[in-house]
Amino acid sequence: MRAGLASRIKAIEISGIRRAFEAASGEFINLGLGEPDFDTPQHIKEAAIAAIKDGFTSYTFGKGIEELREAISEKLREENGIDVTKDEIIVTSGASEALHIAIHTLVERGDEVLIPDPGFVSYANLVKLAEGAPVSVPLRKEDMTMDVNAASELISERTKAIILNSPANPTGAVLSKEDVRAFAELAEDHNLLIISDEVYEKIIYEGEHASPASFYENVVTVNAVSKTYAMTGWRLGYLAAPRSLVEEMLKIHQYIQACASSISQKAALAALTGPQDCVAAMVREFRKRRDFVVEALERLGLEFAKPKGAFYVFPEVEDEDDFVERMRRRGVIVTPGSAFGKYGKNHVRISYAASLEDLKEAFARMEDIINR
Amino acid sequence: MRAGLASRIKAIEISGIRRAFEAASGEFINLGLGEPDFDTPQHIKEAAIAAIKDGFTSYTFGKGIEELREAISEKLREENGIDVTKDEIIVTSGASEALHIAIHTLVERGDEVLIPDPGFVSYANLVKLAEGAPVSVPLRKEDMTMDVNAASELISERTKAIILNSPANPTGAVLSKEDVRAFAELAEDHNLLIISDEVYEKIIYEGEHASPASFYENVVTVNAVSKTYAMTGWRLGYLAAPRSLVEEMLKIHQYIQACASSISQKAALAALTGPQDCVAAMVREFRKRRDFVVEALERLGLEFAKPKGAFYVFPEVEDEDDFVERMRRRGVIVTPGSAFGKYGKNHVRISYAASLEDLKEAFARMEDIINR
Repeated sequence: MRAGLASRIKAIEISGIRRAFEAASGEFINLGLGEPDFDTPQHIKEAAIAAIKDGFTSYTFGKGIEELREAISEKLREENGIDVTKDEIIVTSGASEALHIAIHTLVERGDEVLIPDPGFVSYANLVKLAEGAPVSVPLRKEDMTMDVNAASELISERTKAIILNSPANPTGAVLSKEDVRAFAELAEDHNLLIISDEVYEKIIYEGEHASPASFYENVVTVNAVSKTYAMTGWRLGYLAAPRSLVEEMLKIHQYIQACASSISQKAALAALTGPQDCVAAMVREFRKRRDFVVEALERLGLEFAKPKGAFYVFPEVEDEDDFVERMRRRGVIVTPGSAFGKYGKNHVRISYAASLEDLKEAFARMEDIINR
Repeated sequence: MRAGLASRIKAIEISGIRRAFEAASGEFINLGLGEPDFDTPQHIKEAAIAAIKDGFTSYTFGKGIEELREAISEKLREENGIDVTKDEIIVTSGASEALHIAIHTLVERGDEVLIPDPGFVSYANLVKLAEGAPVSVPLRKEDMTMDVNAASELISERTKAIILNSPANPTGAVLSKEDVRAFAELAEDHNLLIISDEVYEKIIYEGEHASPASFYENVVTVNAVSKTYAMTGWRLGYLAAPRSLVEEMLKIHQYIQACASSISQKAALAALTGPQDCVAAMVREFRKRRDFVVEALERLGLEFAKPKGAFYVFPEVEDEDDFVERMRRRGVIVTPGSAFGKYGKNHVRISYAASLEDLKEAFARMEDIINR
């Protein structure tokens, strides 16, 4: 027999975020995980309960139920300026699966993919899982956005795709419409695919969300109900892409997943088509926390780019391991910046998806540590 | 840029089963899909509704909630003779994801995996997705089980794993305990991993289910609540394997899935720990249908191995395409045998997870076709 594991598995590492999350017990203030601390809105829960009671508990079409794909295509057309039909959409088990099938369909050994660094932990690892090479694009110091010129310089004969993520994890950066358009042009010039992770789309405080697929055809737009509607546990995401690509991605989806949860699909339908004031209320609350966190970090004298979206801030620290460990000893979990890429070193990601009360307590303890 | 798709995607095809399913509208009698036509039992639904109402709608640990993994480890110990702790279990988004992460962790370019042929469509495709080569093991003509000698002859220097599936899709075959033990010994002799897909474990009419992991350590046992508790739409499966392997598989799981649906996890907990009479009632009903189908096929003079488990029968026909098309024109969907591998040619898979009334009508139409 052939001994050992597949080499792809040796190339990837367990996520530092999940490790921190899973090590933290209830007595910690957990600013480590990217998850709204709100409850799923009532009307969404009710739709799911109705689906269960109605026995809507069987396999659905691989791509997802038609009415949900219709609602998604309408949302993408109206809100994002993306012209897709229901047949150009796959409903997935969270944005995680969507990213996986997009990358696995396109990337193979020898291919390079440009990723923001620091960036969401999955990008580099999903590219490696597909046996491709992630290429780190450093971010602009002033606002932590990805610079189109920096990306352009890293394009080689082997480049196949660029991953964009705005609003961004772990920085809270929001790309301007001009930048998004410039990335679309860059991709078009080099015939590259853009994979656009837009899961934080609605959680935005300054600037405006822009979707690359509104400027350029060769884009896989990835989104989910997870962050927008406080539905991380439901595992419900989706992707939209040109039809030919969708049919190829569907092959992987059907063998690795069959379909997304039928119940979560009904919940997502209620989320997308129901009242949206729950989203506005959540964003208002996140904005309060962001303002608190920004002020607290300024008072502490830490360097950071003011987040314009998502629910993270990514300040510089002198020594990330030391900082994380000292915070930990004081009962607060934050994530070391290196978990998000080599250029994240000596930063920490602080998630403010926690109550203002917890944030106040956490920052009081941080002040102790820094001023000691 | 590098043009085109990853070569792995060109190697796999859309499943013939799903294609037939998705083409079938409501007016067809659909004997094409592997899905119990029962509703999820009430106490399971109630547990899910309680989880939703309680706001149990956030990410869980990647491996799954502790109480569910404990229930699974107890089930595996008591019912299957498999000695695993809760830490040697990953809760997945259906058995589909479990098979994917097991195969993707182990198999890479140049590796061979022995699979039953005819066998479940995903095995060959998931091996190809991992860039390995599926090797078809022909089944014994008399009862459609996989023969350990036939498998043994196909082992090469490149063989890495054997996939077992009992009770089997698409044949309804059940491996004897002696055969399961012999496969375990074969795998041990050649230092191969066994991936044992046991999703039909409880749907058994003759013989007794045996788990390879009760005889041999190097086994990934895959199971799900989907078939046993009529929960296909909930997407909830699990795998159990030696700890070192579990930690590697978890890496893939966390990036492609994060965790299984929190709500489905609570539902599965109720399924595994609640009353089991719902399972017995479902199996009684399936047995009636099997007996009807067996008698009807005998009357029609078709050759087939009497199914001992699952809810499929796999008769020989003269020309599968012609048969499937003629049935289709008469409003009945069945699946062509070639969808399950080259040795499935000129058979059809008939799923009897349909009401007795539909089965009677479908077989009356079949009689017309055969006797015309």
